[in-house]
Amino acid sequence: MNIEVCFSPQSYPLFHNPDSIVVVIDVLRATSAITTAFYNGVAKMIPVATIEEAQKYKENGFLVAAERNAEIIEGFDLGNSPFGYMNDKVKGKTIAITTTNGTQAIEAAKNAGKIIIGSFLNQDKVIDYLKTQKKDVLFLCAGWKNKFNLEDTLLAGAAADALIYKYGFDSTCDSTIAAMELYKLAKHDLYGFLAHSSHRNRLAKLDLERDIRYCLTANQCPVLPMMEGKFLVKA
Amino acid sequence: MNIEVCFSPQSYPLFHNPDSIVVVIDVLRATSAITTAFYNGVAKMIPVATIEEAQKYKENGFLVAAERNAEIIEGFDLGNSPFGYMNDKVKGKTIAITTTNGTQAIEAAKNAGKIIIGSFLNQDKVIDYLKTQKKDVLFLCAGWKNKFNLEDTLLAGAAADALIYKYGFDSTCDSTIAAMELYKLAKHDLYGFLAHSSHRNRLAKLDLERDIRYCLTANQCPVLPMMEGKFLVKA
Repeated sequence: MNIEVCFSPQSYPLFHNPDSIVVVIDVLRATSAITTAFYNGVAKMIPVATIEEAQKYKENGFLVAAERNAEIIEGFDLGNSPFGYMNDKVKGKTIAITTTNGTQAIEAAKNAGKIIIGSFLNQDKVIDYLKTQKKDVLFLCAGWKNKFNLEDTLLAGAAADALIYKYGFDSTCDSTIAAMELYKLAKHDLYGFLAHSSHRNRLAKLDLERDIRYCLTANQCPVLPMMEGKFLVKA
Repeated sequence: MNIEVCFSPQSYPLFHNPDSIVVVIDVLRATSAITTAFYNGVAKMIPVATIEEAQKYKENGFLVAAERNAEIIEGFDLGNSPFGYMNDKVKGKTIAITTTNGTQAIEAAKNAGKIIIGSFLNQDKVIDYLKTQKKDVLFLCAGWKNKFNLEDTLLAGAAADALIYKYGFDSTCDSTIAAMELYKLAKHDLYGFLAHSSHRNRLAKLDLERDIRYCLTANQCPVLPMMEGKFLVKA
């Protein structure tokens, strides 16, 4: 049961293993929003890579979330703020979603055997699932436009640390070591550790401090979204 | 004067900036070997990406270094062990070199405005050069077959830390923050910190502990190799 951490969707092909479970991570904010959506009763989500695909779902009457560069695209119903998914409007619905990084990471891993959605909000649910499956695991960090980011790395480190030190997983991968070491440094104050991070500052400029604090708070939404065919569903 | 750290040659295009100085880093062992070679009197080196190109230089009478997967390729004169370059055989010579990762990183950055060679062995020389140039800097980690590695990241973190905290450079790049945090954790015992790293273990199996200890010891070779046209020369 080997663990690897991939810091960029661009690098996914280097790590592809059809027997691995891929945990897609985009803490700020796509996978936090998806986790929140399922916790609040969304029935299914359809991740799509392009705005054109999202537009087609819109024309066919779906609720559609579309975000680029941290803002909702004009004409769509939702973005990737988790707070957009905390209301009755979404309950029981199927929502198509496209985001700058998170849905691109899902697209990059589309040939994986299994894709699940990870965020701090469902951290323990992810760990519980992985420990029972007893398979190799790849944490796929969505990053920012294929560059490394800290917050996704910290969640990968948190989960890897639990799986290795409590549940008998192993890793020979330098990125796993780096992620775990960074998580150990950050875990007592994730928000403070990210004070100088690029995306926290990008969002702070957009007055999204509330989103950031929420997305960094562990285990508020104990659900596990996973891909089944083209749909995200609740496990 | 902005600093960025790129963890993989594959990702170089995301960071390309014609005005940046690119510091290519392959601590274990290509850039350590190149630094050692110039310190020991090598006149020029010609980094080449493929074994076929290396073979052509061999046929034309050059000394040629060729390494893949940490071992010298049969029929060539040298590999990437720094100890191979500590003798009179190399003095005054022009040596062509191809390695698994380091020369691939140089190739990836071939359109950069300026490429210099960094290792722990010439760490302060690199910092001194960058602080006088007052340009943007990209630390390009060679990694292992396009995956992240720890030792290259640690050197990037060491140099970034000095440039930012002593010499007025700045960074808004999460990979720079990660590299500096990891260096702070590791700096009092680089060898111990890398105990579980993938490449230290790969080399230890080949009985290369002496190489590892040497490559992690700072400032033993105060020279600065840099690209000029197709040649590496001493600055």
